[in-house]
Amino acid sequence: MRILVQKFGGTSVDGRDCMLKVREKVLVGLNQGYKIIVVLSAMHGVTSNLIKMASSWAKEPDRAEMDVLLSTGEQQAVALFTMLLKEKGIKSRSCLGHQLPIRTDPTFGSARILDIDKKAITDLLKRYDVLVVAGFQGCDCTQRITTLGRGGSDTSAVALAAVTQAELCEIYTDVEGVYTTDPNICSKAQKISMIDYEEMLEMASMGAKVLQIRSVEFAKKYNVPVLVRSTFSNEPGTLVTKEKNSMEAAMVSGIAYDKDQARITLVGVKDEPGVSAKIFEPIASANIVVDMIVQNPSKNERTDLTFTVPRGSVKDTLKILGKIKDDIGAQDIFHDDNVCKISVIGVGMRTHAGIASIAFATLQKENVNILMISTSEIKISCLVKEKYTELAIRSLHEAFGLDKDVSKACESPLA
Amino acid sequence: MRILVQKFGGTSVDGRDCMLKVREKVLVGLNQGYKIIVVLSAMHGVTSNLIKMASSWAKEPDRAEMDVLLSTGEQQAVALFTMLLKEKGIKSRSCLGHQLPIRTDPTFGSARILDIDKKAITDLLKRYDVLVVAGFQGCDCTQRITTLGRGGSDTSAVALAAVTQAELCEIYTDVEGVYTTDPNICSKAQKISMIDYEEMLEMASMGAKVLQIRSVEFAKKYNVPVLVRSTFSNEPGTLVTKEKNSMEAAMVSGIAYDKDQARITLVGVKDEPGVSAKIFEPIASANIVVDMIVQNPSKNERTDLTFTVPRGSVKDTLKILGKIKDDIGAQDIFHDDNVCKISVIGVGMRTHAGIASIAFATLQKENVNILMISTSEIKISCLVKEKYTELAIRSLHEAFGLDKDVSKACESPLA
Repeated sequence: MRILVQKFGGTSVDGRDCMLKVREKVLVGLNQGYKIIVVLSAMHGVTSNLIKMASSWAKEPDRAEMDVLLSTGEQQAVALFTMLLKEKGIKSRSCLGHQLPIRTDPTFGSARILDIDKKAITDLLKRYDVLVVAGFQGCDCTQRITTLGRGGSDTSAVALAAVTQAELCEIYTDVEGVYTTDPNICSKAQKISMIDYEEMLEMASMGAKVLQIRSVEFAKKYNVPVLVRSTFSNEPGTLVTKEKNSMEAAMVSGIAYDKDQARITLVGVKDEPGVSAKIFEPIASANIVVDMIVQNPSKNERTDLTFTVPRGSVKDTLKILGKIKDDIGAQDIFHDDNVCKISVIGVGMRTHAGIASIAFATLQKENVNILMISTSEIKISCLVKEKYTELAIRSLHEAFGLDKDVSKACESPLA
Repeated sequence: MRILVQKFGGTSVDGRDCMLKVREKVLVGLNQGYKIIVVLSAMHGVTSNLIKMASSWAKEPDRAEMDVLLSTGEQQAVALFTMLLKEKGIKSRSCLGHQLPIRTDPTFGSARILDIDKKAITDLLKRYDVLVVAGFQGCDCTQRITTLGRGGSDTSAVALAAVTQAELCEIYTDVEGVYTTDPNICSKAQKISMIDYEEMLEMASMGAKVLQIRSVEFAKKYNVPVLVRSTFSNEPGTLVTKEKNSMEAAMVSGIAYDKDQARITLVGVKDEPGVSAKIFEPIASANIVVDMIVQNPSKNERTDLTFTVPRGSVKDTLKILGKIKDDIGAQDIFHDDNVCKISVIGVGMRTHAGIASIAFATLQKENVNILMISTSEIKISCLVKEKYTELAIRSLHEAFGLDKDVSKACESPLA
């Protein structure tokens, strides 16, 4: 049995006309001899409306009941879409999270998938040509409904592909694939035909919002090939898969950016053991995610400590720091919202030296001051003033040969 | 464990403000020491909107998928209402049809309840003070979602009361109970404080729409006391229960009417064996419900046959009769939409003679011509011209002593 998973969300399921386009994609898969698992999100706007409704009913809506409420969005979508399939005489049925079942832990609102009954699905696929599965939802071991959190439908799709050993997991969206950078900022951005899981993880977390991070982690773990493509065209899209042969790999695959950054500096903190913990423990307890951290060399047993948090968390962070300011001996606290993190991403970095120096030289040539730097095996991130965002992206995009067709991107400036 | 079932539907669950009134009713029950099973319908208008939506998506929406779609209405209602309970700190949770489970046959759209897991519910009631159950829905033995058809939430409530041996099943609605007749027609209509299941069945089927027929049948079968009352007042309502001691019983409990009637007359049909079958078999096959039937005495081996059908079925019935007209030798076919069926209902008829003659005499005194008559053990129905509807109801209501307080209605004209 050859199985294809096709996931459609957001603008791809915005009413009947869109759903007819979705049906065409399913028919293409059927004509290629696949059994199809269609995973749907709620129709455009439905989930937001339900959240708004709940907020108007209760100040802090019960999380378990919130999941009961939200899961109706996907339930309606799969019922309506299956009606469209049945109208064409396609052997199909809808499947809700609790019916398969998609078993999760009981963390309402952001549950994690524990298990999917492979045999149950395989049995259903023997009887039906298309299963229309409600994304985003599952149930815990007591049959209570759970939801997987934002972008959960991508995760549902990848998990179903993993369990059923599907040949491919297609994620349909309103863009044609993953680009070397944001085409809205850099007109020379190129669609990437193939990208490694880890690169995709970095791209996704940096704001290339085509794929939910958790689904990519899942795909990587279970080695599920994921094809990101558009519902509204027939272009081939971007294949997310395991690391390509690094000889062929582009040294740099893309330039990502994240404007949701704010920088906080603690001036003249006492440089003694335990200070960092005193600062970052209460911040972590408040569920604030600290990204980059830089500590300047100590002078007179005092040091400056700078770190970044999401802009929405600045206020809470400053409140926390205010409380511990005296304890850690900070002389002053500064913060700056007008910053942006630019990241150069590529698995090729593992085998090519000198990427960082090219990045720094490129930014220097354009007089873009680098405020902070952090690196990983496949990524170099530079915090710059927000006003330089476009300039930094465009110049790095050109410097790493991404302006050209990506298939030739291995002809890098280092070659 | 003392259990109380409370069902709220239609206008009682029309948005948050209504639901706050529902919460008050639940609190009253809790304060009386009951564990409560709340059964909710979808919020006002939601089910109709979903049906409209499905019709605009597919010409003949798949029935199984229709149930998946429609069941979201109740699912949203129970989630939102439970949020309101949790906000007050009430130990409660929502329960969907498949969670209890409420097991039904697989007749999508009009499923019948087969079984409810008593132990599962009792266990839940040990852990929660209030279970908020989605009415109208269940699941078949393969976990597919079913719905119980129109008014199904009443049936859900009565079934849950039967299984859990609840002390009482309260059906909350927007009227204060069951009346001796339609108060819109007869200003002297009295609220009935207690009514027998069978009387209620006749009242319900005659258009006293406060309780769904199937739920009354269920209540009768399992001897569940049902209290019909208003969400919007504190009046005691009408208790539907098993037959009262007939010595105390009112001879006549109420006057019902049904304007959804049309009369069809076949003139000069051959009076020979098998003719009735030739007429009524194809009508039944077309799912048209024939109510009253009268056959005049034969003259010259020919007879006139008159029967009633719902008004909406007249066209189809005439089409069927047109086809068999020659075969049955009918000389002519007449039909009349301007008729109304008036019914005098009361279990007291079983022990009191002469009810029919009082009814006929009353109508005659008012010059209301009786077109057809049918009777049962507890009911006399007369078909009259529609223009006499109000006159007939008011004069019968007075003649059977219903204008007075119902508690004294046993002082009947026969006494």
